[in-house]
Amino acid sequence: MNILILNGPNLNLLGRRQPEIYGPHSFDDFFLGLKAAFPHVHLEYFQSNHEGALLDKLHESGFDADGIVLNAGAFTHTSVALADAVAAIRTPVVEVHISNVHAREPFRHQSYLAASCEGSIVGLGLEGYRLAVEWLVRRGKISEKIEGKED
Amino acid sequence: MNILILNGPNLNLLGRRQPEIYGPHSFDDFFLGLKAAFPHVHLEYFQSNHEGALLDKLHESGFDADGIVLNAGAFTHTSVALADAVAAIRTPVVEVHISNVHAREPFRHQSYLAASCEGSIVGLGLEGYRLAVEWLVRRGKISEKIEGKED
Amino acid sequence: MNILILNGPNLNLLGRRQPEIYGPHSFDDFFLGLKAAFPHVHLEYFQSNHEGALLDKLHESGFDADGIVLNAGAFTHTSVALADAVAAIRTPVVEVHISNVHAREPFRHQSYLAASCEGSIVGLGLEGYRLAVEWLVRRGKISEKIEGKED
Amino acid sequence: MNILILNGPNLNLLGRRQPEIYGPHSFDDFFLGLKAAFPHVHLEYFQSNHEGALLDKLHESGFDADGIVLNAGAFTHTSVALADAVAAIRTPVVEVHISNVHAREPFRHQSYLAASCEGSIVGLGLEGYRLAVEWLVRRGKISEKIEGKED
Amino acid sequence: MNILILNGPNLNLLGRRQPEIYGPHSFDDFFLGLKAAFPHVHLEYFQSNHEGALLDKLHESGFDADGIVLNAGAFTHTSVALADAVAAIRTPVVEVHISNVHAREPFRHQSYLAASCEGSIVGLGLEGYRLAVEWLVRRGKISEKIEGKED
Amino acid sequence: MNILILNGPNLNLLGRRQPEIYGPHSFDDFFLGLKAAFPHVHLEYFQSNHEGALLDKLHESGFDADGIVLNAGAFTHTSVALADAVAAIRTPVVEVHISNVHAREPFRHQSYLAASCEGSIVGLGLEGYRLAVEWLVRRGKISEKIEGKED
Amino acid sequence: MNILILNGPNLNLLGRRQPEIYGPHSFDDFFLGLKAAFPHVHLEYFQSNHEGALLDKLHESGFDADGIVLNAGAFTHTSVALADAVAAIRTPVVEVHISNVHAREPFRHQSYLAASCEGSIVGLGLEGYRLAVEWLVRRGKISEKIEGKED
Amino acid sequence: MNILILNGPNLNLLGRRQPEIYGPHSFDDFFLGLKAAFPHVHLEYFQSNHEGALLDKLHESGFDADGIVLNAGAFTHTSVALADAVAAIRTPVVEVHISNVHAREPFRHQSYLAASCEGSIVGLGLEGYRLAVEWLVRRGKISEKIEGKED
Amino acid sequence: MNILILNGPNLNLLGRRQPEIYGPHSFDDFFLGLKAAFPHVHLEYFQSNHEGALLDKLHESGFDADGIVLNAGAFTHTSVALADAVAAIRTPVVEVHISNVHAREPFRHQSYLAASCEGSIVGLGLEGYRLAVEWLVRRGKISEKIEGKED
Amino acid sequence: MNILILNGPNLNLLGRRQPEIYGPHSFDDFFLGLKAAFPHVHLEYFQSNHEGALLDKLHESGFDADGIVLNAGAFTHTSVALADAVAAIRTPVVEVHISNVHAREPFRHQSYLAASCEGSIVGLGLEGYRLAVEWLVRRGKISEKIEGKED
Amino acid sequence: MNILILNGPNLNLLGRRQPEIYGPHSFDDFFLGLKAAFPHVHLEYFQSNHEGALLDKLHESGFDADGIVLNAGAFTHTSVALADAVAAIRTPVVEVHISNVHAREPFRHQSYLAASCEGSIVGLGLEGYRLAVEWLVRRGKISEKIEGKED
Amino acid sequence: MNILILNGPNLNLLGRRQPEIYGPHSFDDFFLGLKAAFPHVHLEYFQSNHEGALLDKLHESGFDADGIVLNAGAFTHTSVALADAVAAIRTPVVEVHISNVHAREPFRHQSYLAASCEGSIVGLGLEGYRLAVEWLVRRGKISEKIEGKED
Repeated sequence: MNILILNGPNLNLLGRRQPEIYGPHSFDDFFLGLKAAFPHVHLEYFQSNHEGALLDKLHESGFDADGIVLNAGAFTHTSVALADAVAAIRTPVVEVHISNVHAREPFRHQSYLAASCEGSIVGLGLEGYRLAVEWLVRRGKISEKIEGKED
Repeated sequence: MNILILNGPNLNLLGRRQPEIYGPHSFDDFFLGLKAAFPHVHLEYFQSNHEGALLDKLHESGFDADGIVLNAGAFTHTSVALADAVAAIRTPVVEVHISNVHAREPFRHQSYLAASCEGSIVGLGLEGYRLAVEWLVRRGKISEKIEGKED
Repeated sequence: MNILILNGPNLNLLGRRQPEIYGPHSFDDFFLGLKAAFPHVHLEYFQSNHEGALLDKLHESGFDADGIVLNAGAFTHTSVALADAVAAIRTPVVEVHISNVHAREPFRHQSYLAASCEGSIVGLGLEGYRLAVEWLVRRGKISEKIEGKED
Repeated sequence: MNILILNGPNLNLLGRRQPEIYGPHSFDDFFLGLKAAFPHVHLEYFQSNHEGALLDKLHESGFDADGIVLNAGAFTHTSVALADAVAAIRTPVVEVHISNVHAREPFRHQSYLAASCEGSIVGLGLEGYRLAVEWLVRRGKISEKIEGKED
Repeated sequence: MNILILNGPNLNLLGRRQPEIYGPHSFDDFFLGLKAAFPHVHLEYFQSNHEGALLDKLHESGFDADGIVLNAGAFTHTSVALADAVAAIRTPVVEVHISNVHAREPFRHQSYLAASCEGSIVGLGLEGYRLAVEWLVRRGKISEKIEGKED
Repeated sequence: MNILILNGPNLNLLGRRQPEIYGPHSFDDFFLGLKAAFPHVHLEYFQSNHEGALLDKLHESGFDADGIVLNAGAFTHTSVALADAVAAIRTPVVEVHISNVHAREPFRHQSYLAASCEGSIVGLGLEGYRLAVEWLVRRGKISEKIEGKED
Repeated sequence: MNILILNGPNLNLLGRRQPEIYGPHSFDDFFLGLKAAFPHVHLEYFQSNHEGALLDKLHESGFDADGIVLNAGAFTHTSVALADAVAAIRTPVVEVHISNVHAREPFRHQSYLAASCEGSIVGLGLEGYRLAVEWLVRRGKISEKIEGKED
Repeated sequence: MNILILNGPNLNLLGRRQPEIYGPHSFDDFFLGLKAAFPHVHLEYFQSNHEGALLDKLHESGFDADGIVLNAGAFTHTSVALADAVAAIRTPVVEVHISNVHAREPFRHQSYLAASCEGSIVGLGLEGYRLAVEWLVRRGKISEKIEGKED
Repeated sequence: MNILILNGPNLNLLGRRQPEIYGPHSFDDFFLGLKAAFPHVHLEYFQSNHEGALLDKLHESGFDADGIVLNAGAFTHTSVALADAVAAIRTPVVEVHISNVHAREPFRHQSYLAASCEGSIVGLGLEGYRLAVEWLVRRGKISEKIEGKED
Repeated sequence: MNILILNGPNLNLLGRRQPEIYGPHSFDDFFLGLKAAFPHVHLEYFQSNHEGALLDKLHESGFDADGIVLNAGAFTHTSVALADAVAAIRTPVVEVHISNVHAREPFRHQSYLAASCEGSIVGLGLEGYRLAVEWLVRRGKISEKIEGKED
Repeated sequence: MNILILNGPNLNLLGRRQPEIYGPHSFDDFFLGLKAAFPHVHLEYFQSNHEGALLDKLHESGFDADGIVLNAGAFTHTSVALADAVAAIRTPVVEVHISNVHAREPFRHQSYLAASCEGSIVGLGLEGYRLAVEWLVRRGKISEKIEGKED
Repeated sequence: MNILILNGPNLNLLGRRQPEIYGPHSFDDFFLGLKAAFPHVHLEYFQSNHEGALLDKLHESGFDADGIVLNAGAFTHTSVALADAVAAIRTPVVEVHISNVHAREPFRHQSYLAASCEGSIVGLGLEGYRLAVEWLVRRGKISEKIEGKED
């Protein structure tokens, strides 16, 4: 089983930005633990500050991988192109945000991406990535996308 | 450990409404499985179509329980009172929606509740409840609320 | 044939509020005449100021009754939950308003309910209830909902 | 008793547009049945795609007829002139829409006309015309306009 | 003289929520002092988290009591039904808010209730209730509602 | 104890504008009674149609007076400068409006001032000034500003 | 000198609509007096409820006449086509409204026409037409359009 | 007969600002001609850049003068206080703008003043003042304000 | 093959309006060249300033013609009725605008028509008509409408 | 003659995404046919998912090429930078969209690019590219940009 | 060389308001240093809380001075009159704000003044005044205004 | 001392785009002069049309450099990602725009970046860069960010 974790702009600063608050650990540190937690899953990690590179990666993995966990960072709120890519590919995508974007500035409440993803996990910290992977693994072989139905 | 699952209006119709789509199982059926999956957690389930009853329940459990999983259904988009209650109590609350509300009508994209909760899990079906409980259990004894920080 | 007439908040004040304008008759008086006009129909009347009680009643009758006439009063403009309930049940619902809400404050021009109902009768006084019952009776045995098509 | 039925743009296409859906009957066919149902009422029918012709007709009938049933079609949402005419004449006007305009595009939810009419019947199909005529007949000799009062 | 004090959702948490900030006293404590300050007035206190219960209470007292002091809490910003009830009853109503809602989130700046009340006292703490009762007592026997006139 | 009453534009017309409605008494008449009601308070009254003069007066009194009652009239809805001045000074300010501005034109519902004041008393007629003075007197020696907290 | 007076929809009802308010005189009566007041001007009068007829008339006169006085009635607020026609022709156009449209419903405050006309006279009754003609006569031979410059 | 011409901010720059465009004449020059044109009318002219001074002047003249011609310049679009003053006084006020404000920036299309004035003359240059005076003179002794009625 | 070219309001002024800019040629001149360019197509041209006449023409040709090229001029931005007619007929319609409407006033950026047409050609001058005819000819016998799919 | 065809994000997926709908052909296939159709034109094709690469390409070709056909895909609706680049270069640009973006989500109705391009061809499928090239070829040597003029 | 520094409302409170934050120095102190830094420039300083006084001063200096540094304080966001004055005078004006207004309340993000000034310096503290003077001095004898051109 | 000058999209066209207006000098030319003016500062210059490259550069320099001068061009108005990066790094950033963006299209008045920067210099041409460097140099060793305080 292949799952891609895709992080957008500024998320490379984790562990460097305000370490007294965010802790001294980079996303790479967290990713090591994540791989250990899912020994039978092939987990790939890719981060870029370039919207185009994120689009290229979605196109590359989006027809073969079994799942994608996407934290598009600030592009969540501005990129129609990423939303279109998520809608065009075949692999199911779960959106993750480390912080509770709904408790921040109003422009962060709008998401172009959310409607194209299977669902989203927001505000539960780095644990959100783990829950997303877990959901994708459970969902497993079921390759067609499911429709949300109930409030 | 005590965790309350709180469902809002119309969610009592699960299993009755369009069973060929939503399946023949009521939320009570699902809840039995959930309890089995967390044998060491005391799980309580409460559903009401009355906003006032949901408020009363939040007040009752919100100073003692270790976690609350809240799917406020349609009240999510209209109830300032529920948002105020979530902000006032001490127990951490995780918001869950079965469907991807961001892919539905525009008025469902607005949430009064989201900013007051720890975070939310949206569009991942009934599995969302399981993930929310799991997160609350892990978070365990840490009783003070955490602040969202990163996009 | 079973038809439910469901009235929302403040409609219990008819006959008491400004009788020199609205007349000395309560809705109960009017209801007696309505029953006499449709002797072969089983008409039930329910009023509540509690949104939750209206939801409960819609759930209770909405899978068995042959028709529902709904005047949700002020909830028309604020309740997503009632709109969801009308959409979820199987019984066709006709919306009625005694006054011409379009000639009143702008916030009364918005209706969450209207899109979920079969149609609406607005501004024709208490006669609107009679016309709604008449339409439901004519429509009779045809149990599946019809789609509006033409302007 | 004289009642005018006034239809606006594109309503002449009934019976021709998608007959497998709308049926093979034109409005003229329906009108014959309507006349038969109200043998003691003088019913007149007028349709035009010209806003000006509708205005002229309202001016012509609006001081003598006992009632007007108006389906202004698309002009409902754009014509201040028709709304002014309805407000200026003495004959009471009931607005009818065959489909449930509230369940269609957002620009169809706005109505310039509604506030000037006595009331409206929306989404109840061609039956809406019959109910409107019935209401006007009952209202009969009472020539002064009534004000909507209650929600 | 009969005056009702009516509190809406979450106001039952006073004294329990963050006592280091709001103080250790519940509204009941405050109410005892208030009764002592107005020995010749019959003061009644009612609180509910149920919008419907508040509506029922307004209907029950609104034709007999000499004044109502209403803090509808979060319902202030969302309930058309409460505004309609205040407009329908005969007893004058003064709106009170303990905090300065105008200095909080934008959605708290909108009030459906304010236009239907005689006036409002906002941000002056629990003292606001005392001032409202004082005003109602002074206004005393003058039973017809007064219109606001000047900025 | 020193308290300033500060009135904005057009409030000098009281007693002159439509005396059959507003009564024959000017604000000066009312002020005499107010002084008599608070014999131990030094009350000062200042009115101007000049926004600049109101700013100058706020600066002059706002670091020494024990309280200010401010009815900025129409400037309430348009003056950021007055709001900034209220926020900058040390003396607590209570906003008063004679009429219920929330029941008037929509542009009167917006207030730049309200968020900077301690609180406001709206729609209670000239009595509003008396209640504001009373509140300031009670609050008395407590010189630091209080924060609004509860709805 | 040739001046056209062009009236839009519903203005043919003057003298017929509510004569106890608007008086018993039609626009034709007023026009007779207007012609007498300007004996040396060739005044033409045209009214239509058809937007297309107004456009045709503007095209016909708009390259030869010395001035046009235009009261487009309700089309003022909805017709881009009339605004385009006024901008395309060479004859200067003065907009007139009998009533003060700025004191009426908000949708009457928007004017597509105003920006294309030389200027407008609003709310001064039928006298507005006389003033407009007077201005056009004075402006006389000066055939090129003037630009508005100062507030 | 006494008529006041009241000019607001920046209008004192006429004749000085871009004389090659606006001409070399100040408003004072124009005013001399205006007085000559109405020898039997007592015309007073007042200009100020101070909103407060304009308010004071309206209060001073607004109960005795027979008419006021008001060009409030930029205050037209921002001053609720001036609109309130115009509404409060007894003298009828005609609004004048030299340029066609509707053909300029969008914020100049909004006018707080227009609804309170009898009417307005816009875009007809300095001639607009003359027409306004002429209208006030004709209207003459008729001292009560007239209501606009027709579009 | 039958193709109709349908022009809306003010387009009859081509060649007359500002000939130094738009050239001395009317649309009729252009149409002659267009017919010569497509000798095997039966091209019909119809222009009207009457929305109703355009609707009538769409109804008349819209079930038999093989294609319609529609420049609705200003009606593009205001006519729901034309959009409904385009949606109701069977003949495919291509929208054309001579100028780049997106580079003009904001109200010209909104188009009711665009969503009902197959597509649009904007800003390419009179050549736009030629390209539209060419596209319809190529599309030829394929009579069912195609859905747009890709950005 | 040199013409550049520039495609934006996700357009590289043509032929791969849902081939049963979009067909089995990639844009490269289509481009071969396009080159064959214009043997005397040097056609270049460039696609990128990187906004920056599209900007670089516009800068590179935009001062020498004779024409550019631009389908910016999702960037159409979000990129001010691309619009600025189109406005800054000398080569004329025609915007193309394969689908009818006006019949899709509201955010696709807004285009930053449209105002800077010569014009646009929307919803006519891949044929739109061919028509755009044809127009640029005809326009040929005329190197200065033309202004859109007529609706 | 003559340069005027013009400060608007509340800026006279510098050094008095919260000295522990803003420091113990008034603007007068700062101004002494500024004069010393530009010994060859005649610097004048004027502050007023009266919008009218600021307008008068702009008129007085705006045709002779070589530069104006304007911090209009709160009037920046509300005064069309000041923007008009800046546009009308000949002297170039540079806007300065001590704080970063873009990081404060949304209503401070709108500026009527900015479009009329040469440019602005925001958020750089009192140093902003020095930089503005420096820019005006450099720009020196070049008396015509320059147009902004590039992003 | 190290200061980075960072230019965004299209700014590489300076000196090439419309040289008769913008002059024949590229930004590189200007930069040479800037370095000469600050001989003791290490100035680095970086330009890119790629948002991602700008983000990478901000991350690279933003923890070590002593100051950054940022002209993000069109990204100013659309990039949340750049704003987040400026907020995350430690180096103070001054925003510069060559032209007065407030005098251009409305979408250029919105800036995501402004709130995260120390301040901004707008509309003062290339001199703006020099002033920004000067301010950063003066501010020198003071490494912590300062908060804007006063209007």
